[in-house]
Amino acid sequence: MGTKERRLLLLSSSVVHGSEYLQHAADDINNFLKKYHVTRILFVPYALHDYDEYTNKVTSVFEKWGYKVNSIHTSKDPVQAVKQAETFYVGGGNTFQLLKALYDWNLIDPIRKSVLEEGVPYIGSSAGTNVATPSICTTNDMPIVYPPSFTALGLIPFNINPHYLDASPTTHMGETREQRIEQYHKIPGVPPVVGLREDCLLHIEGDKITLKGKSCVRIFSPGKNPEEHEAGSNLSFLLKTI
Amino acid sequence: MGTKERRLLLLSSSVVHGSEYLQHAADDINNFLKKYHVTRILFVPYALHDYDEYTNKVTSVFEKWGYKVNSIHTSKDPVQAVKQAETFYVGGGNTFQLLKALYDWNLIDPIRKSVLEEGVPYIGSSAGTNVATPSICTTNDMPIVYPPSFTALGLIPFNINPHYLDASPTTHMGETREQRIEQYHKIPGVPPVVGLREDCLLHIEGDKITLKGKSCVRIFSPGKNPEEHEAGSNLSFLLKTI
Ligand SMILES: [Ca+2]
Ligand SMILES: [Ca+2]
Repeated sequence: MGTKERRLLLLSSSVVHGSEYLQHAADDINNFLKKYHVTRILFVPYALHDYDEYTNKVTSVFEKWGYKVNSIHTSKDPVQAVKQAETFYVGGGNTFQLLKALYDWNLIDPIRKSVLEEGVPYIGSSAGTNVATPSICTTNDMPIVYPPSFTALGLIPFNINPHYLDASPTTHMGETREQRIEQYHKIPGVPPVVGLREDCLLHIEGDKITLKGKSCVRIFSPGKNPEEHEAGSNLSFLLKTI
Repeated sequence: MGTKERRLLLLSSSVVHGSEYLQHAADDINNFLKKYHVTRILFVPYALHDYDEYTNKVTSVFEKWGYKVNSIHTSKDPVQAVKQAETFYVGGGNTFQLLKALYDWNLIDPIRKSVLEEGVPYIGSSAGTNVATPSICTTNDMPIVYPPSFTALGLIPFNINPHYLDASPTTHMGETREQRIEQYHKIPGVPPVVGLREDCLLHIEGDKITLKGKSCVRIFSPGKNPEEHEAGSNLSFLLKTI
């Protein structure tokens, strides 16, 4: 599939401590939607259990900004809803639940096609960011349901670890996030992982990636030392490693 | 299968901040092994990538205590090694990697049979504790490999969340552990979850469970408020809920 038309905004988190839902990324989201002349959003609520409640919360935020929201769960034909979507917002929650629902409703290929071939903009947050990558292998979520595969939408060729956390020096809490990613990188052939701290987001346009938000990201590549890249950095090299 | 012969020691963690490998549980492990007149331990290293290195680390600790250790990965016939085992020690690491290897080597039924029908003692730590339960649905680990199922050994009828952590009041870090377990409990028919804080362990003998270690556990049952139970508590009710 092509990547020239790709338009993605991938958030680490929908909430940052002390602020309301999506407010920390309000400017970036609004600039993104305006740039592509979006007026309607197709919301994907599958990562949480109560779709109606989740849709109300998301709708109230986007409506305040002037956008119309439809949730895919209210459509009788979700595949058709994807084909007609003007933009996607895939919300956070449990990544396993989200991916399983995308498979259950046969939405993997249609979403992939819309984004990569038709240039339909895609906003993901947390679990919605995980499923945009080649696999959900670097989610932090509990495996509360069993999806038919860990292979995800593959809108980009590298993994993301949302809510990336540095090790706490004072207590043990099982493996650190960095150790978990190192364990992943012992498996031959797996891609780099971007450790996306909570107030970070990636803006991907075709073959260009810009790091937005306020923090650095930590990038893990198999066989290399991790690297820090600061807000505003051009991370397009991540699209050229594969 | 029967449960009368069941002899399990399930640790939250193999390391507690500031102490050496397994030292925080040294007395409980030694009492457990002495009680059942164990002299040889079959070690299961599959949760980590480097089996030899992991085996050396574990062997040095158990040898110091006077036990002989064989690792299952050095056996040409792992199923036969399970059948001849005098006791199991299943170490921590990545739960998905561990469970996948147990399936790849066809060890699920043989281990289950040894523990539940032959009374072979089982010590698990972290990932080794997760796989002792009905499923790995409450692990904290990253899904770095795809096992053929999330169904695990089912040596007990409830789930455990090792390295259980209380919410941090000062920062956001994705969902709290409690929120993750609540999401799990929205799925119909799933069992209770024991949130096992790092210095806790469960001693299970037949139909009796005693909480050992220094902390409380937090027990989550679907549709109920979470409950705290302090060290020394009898938790046998968990075996009667199913
Ligand atoms: Ca999540
Ligand atoms: Ca682990």
